[in-house]
Amino acid sequence: MKIVQQEFTVSTRTRCQMIDITSQVESIIRQSGITNGDAIVYCPHTTAAITINENADPSVRHDILLTLEELLPHYRPGYRHTEGNSDAHCKSSLVGCSRQILVKDKSLELGTWQGVFFCEFDGPRSRKVLVQIRGE
Amino acid sequence: MKIVQQEFTVSTRTRCQMIDITSQVESIIRQSGITNGDAIVYCPHTTAAITINENADPSVRHDILLTLEELLPHYRPGYRHTEGNSDAHCKSSLVGCSRQILVKDKSLELGTWQGVFFCEFDGPRSRKVLVQIRGE
Amino acid sequence: MKIVQQEFTVSTRTRCQMIDITSQVESIIRQSGITNGDAIVYCPHTTAAITINENADPSVRHDILLTLEELLPHYRPGYRHTEGNSDAHCKSSLVGCSRQILVKDKSLELGTWQGVFFCEFDGPRSRKVLVQIRGE
Repeated sequence: MKIVQQEFTVSTRTRCQMIDITSQVESIIRQSGITNGDAIVYCPHTTAAITINENADPSVRHDILLTLEELLPHYRPGYRHTEGNSDAHCKSSLVGCSRQILVKDKSLELGTWQGVFFCEFDGPRSRKVLVQIRGE
Repeated sequence: MKIVQQEFTVSTRTRCQMIDITSQVESIIRQSGITNGDAIVYCPHTTAAITINENADPSVRHDILLTLEELLPHYRPGYRHTEGNSDAHCKSSLVGCSRQILVKDKSLELGTWQGVFFCEFDGPRSRKVLVQIRGE
Repeated sequence: MKIVQQEFTVSTRTRCQMIDITSQVESIIRQSGITNGDAIVYCPHTTAAITINENADPSVRHDILLTLEELLPHYRPGYRHTEGNSDAHCKSSLVGCSRQILVKDKSLELGTWQGVFFCEFDGPRSRKVLVQIRGE
């Protein structure tokens, strides 16, 4: 059992954005020398998240962000946190700050339409993504 | 450290459905020969998800699906994805496409009321579930 | 590869509450003798969850619970589960019953503002948290 960890940076350009990071994760797997096992993709921020969803049609990303915005608008009466980003903290806990993906034949074992996304909910910012690959 | 992976098929019958897959996961653990470790249950689809919740009273499933339907209705003004299943993509990212469960004494270490569910949000379809067991 | 598992109890005081359990998880890592790897924090209950979010300003917790309460109110017309806690089951599936965190240099590799929280959605109760540390 081998454990390899690396990180990379993501620069976001708007307040809410989903950025496809599949190729960065794949590249870390290839460099790791690990053939089979799993990958943890971890976001060390409290106003961002990691998700897996369709990366073929960009309108899916648009519709997910639209839905999150309508369910969790930027301002809500009763919010106490003074930084004005409580909605982003909620989105982070609902989408989740990490995902685990299986690794097979030196590649992510994603479904046909699946890609890995970094979700920015309080940008634009420079963000970090941690990737740990475990296996043999 | 041993890694064993298998998959199985789930046939869903309605658009939104929660199907108890606990016994299929348990069966893969028994066949794996692994006593202690963890199991990753992974859904390679972008309009479905995996969750852990109560499998004693079926009305819990009904109430979860009702809530998701009311929060994320099938159609929302502004959706751009032309396949008409943007709500299902959102539900998938909110519930999450995988779960990790501890394995102890050749069995899932679930709480008294917990079961593992495949969540269909755009059925009926034939779906695949990947299960990776890791441990000793 | 070493696997160490321990559990601890959390006593919740209100119906909905987020309790910082970072120090309990850190303590299990120190006792495990594991330097690098990962930790799974697992909640074996169907009306509670585990999340990672800001533990600096307590108003973030307040705002997350407020948002969940408004999106998923205690009662919803159409609920069939007779225990009156269907909202708590929904919150559990949306936030998720476990989280995975990387372990580096005998410590959780959390972001600057991140802490690990037990989320009670149907308290007050006595709850259990399972922690599995894997690594070398």
